Amino acid sequence: MQIYHLLEERFARISSIEDAIGILQWDSETMMPEGAADGRSDQLATLKGLAHELLTAPDTGELLAQADQDSGQLDDWQRANLREMRRIYLHGSAVPADLVEASSKAVSKAELVWREARQNGDFALLLPHLAQVLSFQRQIGQAKGDVLGLSPYDALLDSYDPGLRQEIIDPLFTELGAELPGLIQEAQERQKKLPAIQPLNGPFPVDDQRRIGEQLMKAVGFDFNQGRLDVSLHPFCGGSTGDVRITTRYSEANFMSALMGVLHETGHALYEQGRPEKWRRQPVGLARGMSLHESQSLLIEMQACRSREFVTYLAPLVRETFQGEGPAWSPENLHRILTRVEPDFIRVDADEITYPAHILVRYKLEKALIAGNLPIEDLPSAFNEEIKKLLGLTVPDDSLGCLQDIHWPGGAWGYFPTYTLGAMTAAQLFRAACQADADILPGLAKGDFAPLRNWLRAKVHAKGSLMATDQLVAAATGQPLTAEVFRAHLRERYLTH
Amino acid sequence: MQIYHLLEERFARISSIEDAIGILQWDSETMMPEGAADGRSDQLATLKGLAHELLTAPDTGELLAQADQDSGQLDDWQRANLREMRRIYLHGSAVPADLVEASSKAVSKAELVWREARQNGDFALLLPHLAQVLSFQRQIGQAKGDVLGLSPYDALLDSYDPGLRQEIIDPLFTELGAELPGLIQEAQERQKKLPAIQPLNGPFPVDDQRRIGEQLMKAVGFDFNQGRLDVSLHPFCGGSTGDVRITTRYSEANFMSALMGVLHETGHALYEQGRPEKWRRQPVGLARGMSLHESQSLLIEMQACRSREFVTYLAPLVRETFQGEGPAWSPENLHRILTRVEPDFIRVDADEITYPAHILVRYKLEKALIAGNLPIEDLPSAFNEEIKKLLGLTVPDDSLGCLQDIHWPGGAWGYFPTYTLGAMTAAQLFRAACQADADILPGLAKGDFAPLRNWLRAKVHAKGSLMATDQLVAAATGQPLTAEVFRAHLRERYLTH
Repeated sequence: MQIYHLLEERFARISSIEDAIGILQWDSETMMPEGAADGRSDQLATLKGLAHELLTAPDTGELLAQADQDSGQLDDWQRANLREMRRIYLHGSAVPADLVEASSKAVSKAELVWREARQNGDFALLLPHLAQVLSFQRQIGQAKGDVLGLSPYDALLDSYDPGLRQEIIDPLFTELGAELPGLIQEAQERQKKLPAIQPLNGPFPVDDQRRIGEQLMKAVGFDFNQGRLDVSLHPFCGGSTGDVRITTRYSEANFMSALMGVLHETGHALYEQGRPEKWRRQPVGLARGMSLHESQSLLIEMQACRSREFVTYLAPLVRETFQGEGPAWSPENLHRILTRVEPDFIRVDADEITYPAHILVRYKLEKALIAGNLPIEDLPSAFNEEIKKLLGLTVPDDSLGCLQDIHWPGGAWGYFPTYTLGAMTAAQLFRAACQADADILPGLAKGDFAPLRNWLRAKVHAKGSLMATDQLVAAATGQPLTAEVFRAHLRERYLTH
Repeated sequence: MQIYHLLEERFARISSIEDAIGILQWDSETMMPEGAADGRSDQLATLKGLAHELLTAPDTGELLAQADQDSGQLDDWQRANLREMRRIYLHGSAVPADLVEASSKAVSKAELVWREARQNGDFALLLPHLAQVLSFQRQIGQAKGDVLGLSPYDALLDSYDPGLRQEIIDPLFTELGAELPGLIQEAQERQKKLPAIQPLNGPFPVDDQRRIGEQLMKAVGFDFNQGRLDVSLHPFCGGSTGDVRITTRYSEANFMSALMGVLHETGHALYEQGRPEKWRRQPVGLARGMSLHESQSLLIEMQACRSREFVTYLAPLVRETFQGEGPAWSPENLHRILTRVEPDFIRVDADEITYPAHILVRYKLEKALIAGNLPIEDLPSAFNEEIKKLLGLTVPDDSLGCLQDIHWPGGAWGYFPTYTLGAMTAAQLFRAACQADADILPGLAKGDFAPLRNWLRAKVHAKGSLMATDQLVAAATGQPLTAEVFRAHLRERYLTH
């Protein structure tokens, strides 16, 4: 027990450093004056280095082994905590320091070049740098895989989403991919037959947008005593344990995009704010992984806040806030705006039904690149071919194709699939929640999120990392993750009524 | 050289941690939601502990000794840097860790009790906690003094202001104290004979106050590319190297207080922003000490911005900003407002001429308390007696007396004298500057701070900690710090014209 408690102390200390890093990163995106960027890099590199030194201290491995021998004395949470400590330790210590540093430098360089390459649609410019990043990612995957007993790509997946494997993703994405093109086409055809969407005409003052955003955040359950809402170029949910900070970006011409963004990040924040109080600074108290995290944002934004029920509550609220008049402000028209289907090139602007197509393309390609089955110079043509297949679009320019996302030059390989796994998980959790509590949907129609929130708190948030993702999903919904509930949700929302 | 560079790397790392702490502390006062206070304490304690561990690592002492032997190869800045490293190391390592912790806990408790004690004017409530803090301060002073070869109080002074000693302060304060009561009385008598002050009647919108504050910050020379202005309960200058953040507090009833506060903090910020670029993350690149720091804020606020010259520029500017009308907005009346003399109980609200009296009282008493020449239970009566002597006021209640400041319960013993030493230094530097460059005063009358700023940059800011404070002052002004220039300034401003 003594050894275990020593480890708890060390991980609590690491958690405090990570929390400090979280606030500094938030500050970089929201408050920091431009000229302070270099100093901030020094601060972040120093703190990350210190956290890594604490994690991989020479005695950590030995302490973990010793604590393991005494694990009979530990309760379930402590045992799970020990398991998570080991997982984090293995990920942190698997990669030699010089490889971490070389990879980090390659990423910094590639991100810089990427900005110019994207602007000019110039893949050739990025190619050598992207090849470098890929090479380091393959080495990192290999190093982690050797320690964890996984293939390189599975090891990368495991960094973002513990327990996630290609053998889990492949059948789910294959099933979805088979249905998507037809589904998208049918949804568009049905859409054409409906009355035309009435646009909402602004300008919509930013102050009003912020006020209604905060009001809805409170309704969803965001605790402003332990969090904030601010503005940044790229919306995110960050901050630290017990101080969760989300951001959005306002446009006076379109309030809906910022508002849905706020609700999306509020879903993430709710997860962070609902982590088990007692374990907040321990590995077992962390959110389980990126799929589940994304499921919480999508559950709030896509499942709850674009439902017909919630839109009946939202419509009069926004009409009053922005003093809107006419049929454009009807719940029916608002719902149509919120569920418009429009295949297009840019992933981050995609609607609910075309978004997964973008992810399937990226998953297939990054898997092949890491496995060495696709030469990096063939990426543009392979990317465009897949987009054509799934979305029926001809990519005119790599800036609208494989150059659009920062993930690959940024070294985030193995991250993309969690977006769509999150969407599938959200659908499955939401259906289970609504089946378990008949008050949830009528609650949304009154702007009352308490029934939904309570279910999520109990089944997801308060579990932290006690269970594996698949166990958690099965315990909450009665079955492992399937593609079918999400497919049914899409059919229901986009092909019927 | 190799050893020296190793030390530079270590201190640069410590500097990055201190910078992170600076931003987190700024965030605590400006942005942090209330419920995040406990987590923030954890973060700050962890980072402070890591910085302390790096500083007092087992080999630091040995490395310093070795670097010393090779110091012939170092240039002036490097040698001074080594000297400052040793100073910081000695301060950091002199106090045993358990004493640091016990003192820190006693301070936290005393600060908490102090808030209640001050509210109720209940010294007895604070007494046992204050006695604890004092006892730890005496032990800390003793421990540092043993290592530095100083008396306990001198060792405490040295923590805030390297090289500061009682033997420097005593003659300066004695000379000032002898003249102050008469000066205050004469100034008040003269004030009575002048036409009555016309009050400026608000409300003054906060947005306008912020705009004019930022405008004047820019005029003084604040670089917004490496800094910010925000709002906090207690104004301060903080942030980090290359990211200097000042705060103020607005009242719609009185714009002058916030504006002068902004100019005061801008003086501090100018010092921070003007530190030698090349040495920013090294000890020799730090601001020299608290007296000199306060001299920079007071030079801008008191010497420059309350001068008749600057007020001729300020008056039409504020009249236009707030659409003021009538004789209250004349430069003459504005200057009278900015130089009003009014003996009162609260230090932080005191005017330029009564403020030093508050400091002299505190200096005399804390020196006696640390030396063991004044029993702590006699503090209230001794405090009130001194206030009577210097300001002619009868303290009605300890909340207006010895309970008003957080410094003593907060463990900041040896800090108070730097306020008035700063005022003296400001007067002496400003006179030397105006003598050296005849454009400075005419510049202020046009809102042009460039001549003054250039002199300060060269003579003070860019010197960092290269020299000792007394050397720097002598080099800049041609003589060591005297009370006479400050006394002449007070006589000139408050007794003539």
